[in-house]
Amino acid sequence: MTKRKAPAESSVEENVYKVFPNDLNSEYTVFGGLVMGLCDRTALIVAERHSGHTCVTAAVDSLNFLSPARAGETLIVKAAVNRSWRSSMEIGVHVAAENSHSGESRHVVSAYLTFVALDERGKPTSVPEVMPRSKTEKRRFEEAQSRRDQRLANRSPG
Amino acid sequence: MTKRKAPAESSVEENVYKVFPNDLNSEYTVFGGLVMGLCDRTALIVAERHSGHTCVTAAVDSLNFLSPARAGETLIVKAAVNRSWRSSMEIGVHVAAENSHSGESRHVVSAYLTFVALDERGKPTSVPEVMPRSKTEKRRFEEAQSRRDQRLANRSPG
Amino acid sequence: MTKRKAPAESSVEENVYKVFPNDLNSEYTVFGGLVMGLCDRTALIVAERHSGHTCVTAAVDSLNFLSPARAGETLIVKAAVNRSWRSSMEIGVHVAAENSHSGESRHVVSAYLTFVALDERGKPTSVPEVMPRSKTEKRRFEEAQSRRDQRLANRSPG
Amino acid sequence: MTKRKAPAESSVEENVYKVFPNDLNSEYTVFGGLVMGLCDRTALIVAERHSGHTCVTAAVDSLNFLSPARAGETLIVKAAVNRSWRSSMEIGVHVAAENSHSGESRHVVSAYLTFVALDERGKPTSVPEVMPRSKTEKRRFEEAQSRRDQRLANRSPG
Amino acid sequence: MTKRKAPAESSVEENVYKVFPNDLNSEYTVFGGLVMGLCDRTALIVAERHSGHTCVTAAVDSLNFLSPARAGETLIVKAAVNRSWRSSMEIGVHVAAENSHSGESRHVVSAYLTFVALDERGKPTSVPEVMPRSKTEKRRFEEAQSRRDQRLANRSPG
Amino acid sequence: MTKRKAPAESSVEENVYKVFPNDLNSEYTVFGGLVMGLCDRTALIVAERHSGHTCVTAAVDSLNFLSPARAGETLIVKAAVNRSWRSSMEIGVHVAAENSHSGESRHVVSAYLTFVALDERGKPTSVPEVMPRSKTEKRRFEEAQSRRDQRLANRSPG
Repeated sequence: MTKRKAPAESSVEENVYKVFPNDLNSEYTVFGGLVMGLCDRTALIVAERHSGHTCVTAAVDSLNFLSPARAGETLIVKAAVNRSWRSSMEIGVHVAAENSHSGESRHVVSAYLTFVALDERGKPTSVPEVMPRSKTEKRRFEEAQSRRDQRLANRSPG
Repeated sequence: MTKRKAPAESSVEENVYKVFPNDLNSEYTVFGGLVMGLCDRTALIVAERHSGHTCVTAAVDSLNFLSPARAGETLIVKAAVNRSWRSSMEIGVHVAAENSHSGESRHVVSAYLTFVALDERGKPTSVPEVMPRSKTEKRRFEEAQSRRDQRLANRSPG
Repeated sequence: MTKRKAPAESSVEENVYKVFPNDLNSEYTVFGGLVMGLCDRTALIVAERHSGHTCVTAAVDSLNFLSPARAGETLIVKAAVNRSWRSSMEIGVHVAAENSHSGESRHVVSAYLTFVALDERGKPTSVPEVMPRSKTEKRRFEEAQSRRDQRLANRSPG
Repeated sequence: MTKRKAPAESSVEENVYKVFPNDLNSEYTVFGGLVMGLCDRTALIVAERHSGHTCVTAAVDSLNFLSPARAGETLIVKAAVNRSWRSSMEIGVHVAAENSHSGESRHVVSAYLTFVALDERGKPTSVPEVMPRSKTEKRRFEEAQSRRDQRLANRSPG
Repeated sequence: MTKRKAPAESSVEENVYKVFPNDLNSEYTVFGGLVMGLCDRTALIVAERHSGHTCVTAAVDSLNFLSPARAGETLIVKAAVNRSWRSSMEIGVHVAAENSHSGESRHVVSAYLTFVALDERGKPTSVPEVMPRSKTEKRRFEEAQSRRDQRLANRSPG
Repeated sequence: MTKRKAPAESSVEENVYKVFPNDLNSEYTVFGGLVMGLCDRTALIVAERHSGHTCVTAAVDSLNFLSPARAGETLIVKAAVNRSWRSSMEIGVHVAAENSHSGESRHVVSAYLTFVALDERGKPTSVPEVMPRSKTEKRRFEEAQSRRDQRLANRSPG
């Protein structure tokens, strides 16, 4: 599968999740692991849409909590593919916490995850190139390569 | 709060949910209760966006399973307000099951839920009128009233 | 399988569920989706007992929240088959919230769900007729047909 | 609260739970911890009904798995108070696995749990005596005292 | 498999679990069923390590709550095999609640569970003998036999 | 709180988690989000032990899946503090998948997470310095600073 695809063909524009009390940690803010799971599940859908294949998470390259989310807020998750390599893709995820009453929202999490596409036998398989169109998409496309170069340089024994 | 709002101001366009094995019933199709919960959580966000208030589910007026969803598929949930009355709103929900590899999807569930908006003391409070714009929105606006009339006529002892 | 069965042969008389904090929505009342799931799971057992077959949820025809349930209360769920047609059955569900300390309880939810019985290949299969005996069972038997007639008349494009 | 109560005044006759794939352990039989939780939640309701107070689990005195339960089966949980002491009660729990299609069931778990009743300040408070009526209730009443005597004799450093 | 193994070869020294709000019962202490599940899951690992086989829970012989655990505390679970018989093993479990800020902890639960080892066809299979070494291990080895003798003597109709 | 503490004073040596079917993704390997949650919960305990304060996740700096984990395996999670700065700490996490029958295990995940310590009013508060002792601890201490420098250099608009 060698065709090129734009990020908009596979992006998730608005995955919503209303925070309930059972999503809270002992500080009564949203449990970090819940947000991580939400980012992973949303990014996975983008990876499968872009590649046309089953995908598995290879890495969370970074995931930053900018602000805590609280009970009663609505998490709004957006995700898009930034760049692909032979069989892997970087997916960028943006999470906002919305007060659905007032409509106000703030950025709470930014994350970059890498997924690998698998063929029917579970082996890595090639994925379409990403064809960035907008200025933002082009910047993300360039930055994804820098992040990847840095990751490869950083591989170190645990 | 008496202003009128269009359905597009509060709709959820694409809530996505990747089906995992732990979402399956003993027939290995998606557990009905999971889909109901997903419809309820998504519709709740629309109700809170439209009303600007905390809302609670008053009724599931109908929820039809047109086709089973399966592991590996992605549920795509869309929800919009159809009509409002003094303190209540009917929210329509449409669920599709997408094969994220091929991009194909099929309609799996249609549901209508009624929510009530509450003020700070937990009492019903008035909500904005719905101002339908498109032809589809206008049809839904009319049908919502018929459904409501029927519901009121049907109230019977359990 | 053509024999007729009375509702009492398949009913669930007292499914109990103690409400815990992780069952609550952001208003600290029981999450609507939890109650829906509880109704679905209980009604499913009735449908399988009546039909002698694997069953799947076809529809929630209505589910009304009469009063919110709260943490610490016990949900008492009763379910019985009201009527059957060729391969489908209407199950009525009644949920009460009990204060287990005082023994007081109040009706919180009424629901009607439709299930379809499936044979080994997953195709709809015929189910026993319902043979109502008590006055209440006879009333429910009649009302179930009216609800079905109305549903069939109401089928409309989403 | 010194009045005496019969076991039938607080018993749970039929708590039902349809086993789903996400309740299974790696051998695809029902996860032991799920059954334990189900016994605990059901017995708790009996303890609160008998005592008229908030109760907490003090001990699982024994819980025996006689046979594994499997996906697709329905767990039928019955629980009743066997005997009470100053502020504690022994609750007996019986779990059967029913094939809801054929109506066959087999006994899968027997358990005895002890609960303590608490007053508003969280201190142990007295509970009604148990007044056994049937022959079975009388046998359970006697056996409960033997189990308690044995437990008190067995208390040993971990 | 006839070789003898010391408890230290299969023990779990420190399984940790941070208590979150969704683990609480309606008294805002840790739900008994959660602790039971945690004991069961930890003991299972010890049983599989000791036997080299798939194991299933046969019984909770006793599980005593000495003190409630609360939100924000960390549960520290230790488990070791006390003694084995032909195809079964008694696993002892000790749970402490740690205040991770101050480092203080207190003993909250003691439990004894019996597991059975299964071969590939799901039939009970023989397990290595336990070779106690320390004084504590020897005491537990002796007490396990007494508990077993008592259990066998106690088997009674539910 | 200015005293220095060695990593061994707060490390978690063996957090165990038996993988069950409901932890699997649609490829029947362990759901990435579950592993992330397990890393987060384990690292949180280390952060609270090291700092003596409530901590919240600030970032997942990297989390690499080296190999998938499967149903029936046991996840063994180890975590230790690598370095601290004014109010933040880097925690390293190592996850292995053990076949508890054979005792074999393989490294499946490496992760670095940053936590911030909070005082009673929820404001960042100072934490003890990390005093590395072993050669490995010293290497991790140095690498943690490099990772931090890189992170600070990389902060870019989403």
